[in-house]
Amino acid sequence: MLGSFLRRNDNILYKGYMDFKKYLNNRCALVDKALNNLMPERDEYPSVINQAMRYSVFAGGKRVRPVLVIMAAEALGFEASRVMPTACAMELIHTYSLIHDDLPCMDDDDYRRGKLTNHKVYGENMAVLGGDGLLTLAFELVTKNAEVKGVNSGAVVKALKIIADGAGTHGMVGGQVVDIISENKKLSEPVLQYIHTHKTGALLRASILAGAVLCNADEKKYKALKVYGEHIGLIFQIVDDILNVVGDEKKLGKAVGSDAKRKKMTYPALFGLKQSREEVELLCEKAKTAVKPFGKKAETMLALVDFLKEREA
Amino acid sequence: MLGSFLRRNDNILYKGYMDFKKYLNNRCALVDKALNNLMPERDEYPSVINQAMRYSVFAGGKRVRPVLVIMAAEALGFEASRVMPTACAMELIHTYSLIHDDLPCMDDDDYRRGKLTNHKVYGENMAVLGGDGLLTLAFELVTKNAEVKGVNSGAVVKALKIIADGAGTHGMVGGQVVDIISENKKLSEPVLQYIHTHKTGALLRASILAGAVLCNADEKKYKALKVYGEHIGLIFQIVDDILNVVGDEKKLGKAVGSDAKRKKMTYPALFGLKQSREEVELLCEKAKTAVKPFGKKAETMLALVDFLKEREA
Repeated sequence: MLGSFLRRNDNILYKGYMDFKKYLNNRCALVDKALNNLMPERDEYPSVINQAMRYSVFAGGKRVRPVLVIMAAEALGFEASRVMPTACAMELIHTYSLIHDDLPCMDDDDYRRGKLTNHKVYGENMAVLGGDGLLTLAFELVTKNAEVKGVNSGAVVKALKIIADGAGTHGMVGGQVVDIISENKKLSEPVLQYIHTHKTGALLRASILAGAVLCNADEKKYKALKVYGEHIGLIFQIVDDILNVVGDEKKLGKAVGSDAKRKKMTYPALFGLKQSREEVELLCEKAKTAVKPFGKKAETMLALVDFLKEREA
Repeated sequence: MLGSFLRRNDNILYKGYMDFKKYLNNRCALVDKALNNLMPERDEYPSVINQAMRYSVFAGGKRVRPVLVIMAAEALGFEASRVMPTACAMELIHTYSLIHDDLPCMDDDDYRRGKLTNHKVYGENMAVLGGDGLLTLAFELVTKNAEVKGVNSGAVVKALKIIADGAGTHGMVGGQVVDIISENKKLSEPVLQYIHTHKTGALLRASILAGAVLCNADEKKYKALKVYGEHIGLIFQIVDDILNVVGDEKKLGKAVGSDAKRKKMTYPALFGLKQSREEVELLCEKAKTAVKPFGKKAETMLALVDFLKEREA
């Protein structure tokens, strides 16, 4: 799938899938280190909120959104450090959304990634405030990207706008709202599409685009990355839905079949498993085609497509 | 208290307190109009979240934070329009914090300003998401301030940083956390000070400072406005505490004595009513002294000090 090539920055040699995993592990380690540096310390007063925030941020997330920010930068010829504060910000937004989503008044989940959910450990009030704190810190981190050499404030403002749009009622929050009000209702394709493009897709797309503007992508490259981001979002969501039907509970760290039990609107529920898988294949091809013009610099973006398609958790 | 003078922009003549009320009404009307324009329409899909957000934003708030942003701009010789998107953003952050604060897992309040709280009308899930949506929209609005003529992106990034710092765990959220973990505990002055300077004060201070940086305040003027903002925050909080003991329930639109019932740490509980009132007087003098050098341009800031001191709701 991937040709073998030598990375400029870290001397990791890629040979196909396993090498992509090495790449991912390397970038995730960089993100984890930066998150640890950029978040308030555990024992900073008032410590309970810092512990609550760190608990969920370091609970085994796959760092897909930060890696997308980094991949966009790398496709444009920059190193991960160029966009690191923003990469971290995307993970904080993702984490806050999970904490609030798990609350008793929302999905009422006790476990996430095999661990107790935030409110089960720190109480509902701290889970609400921890989510609020993470969302706020995320925007603060993006402003820190203006301190990175070569990044101008205009690009940071653009990135902030893209991220707020992707995270708010026109994006992720809007998707969550429609997901909730659609429960136990008859399925319709436009509504399903709305949920898919907003609930998860909007933030994934925003990650790619934020990375692009922070690296001054020209219009053509920006558009290509946008197409990639949109398709990645759909792939991610449909595979999520499929895993909720046929996934391995142990690997997922959560119950399978919960969507069907809640009568949630999902791709497999509407179109069946076979057609859902075919749709994923089609989307993967389109995503790969979009970033082909970037050549070797986007080989990790091609590999990510397959990674997301084949993932088991 | 106030000399009579003619405002440059709007031909409103001031004569003392009643004229300050006219000024406030005028600026509040400008803010309300801008909020109405900048927020998603009620019937925009998915409409329930827009209705929930608008319900609380237009539930009779006093617009203290937006007016502070505007006052800072006016003290520096600019018109309200220079900072309006950011002024609106501060009101959205304030509103989100009230919605989340009223949730059953937090203060569990059924009424706010004489109206049913957000979750009583729209349900807890929409109240959580509505708050999340408002906080996110707030940061988006600040980025819109870069579109105002004469405002550069660098100033917007600075404003965003100030606002995020004032709203997050180092500011408002931190104050709420300490407020919660201090309930039913023995009072201590440092903890009370922390709550007072963070829970309400941090956002009021951030409003003033965001206005200042968007108008390119020099270091001396920035510092003066900072002192003013810090004192305004304390005055606001102590008066709030006093009103919770001796206020008029009808005017407040909420129950009096709730702090004592919850054994909340307040200024009157720790120092008594008399000393609390003396402290307010002292803080008022200090706030006024800080902005005296701005002359006529800061007369509304002087009037605001008395307004906050004398308020009954």
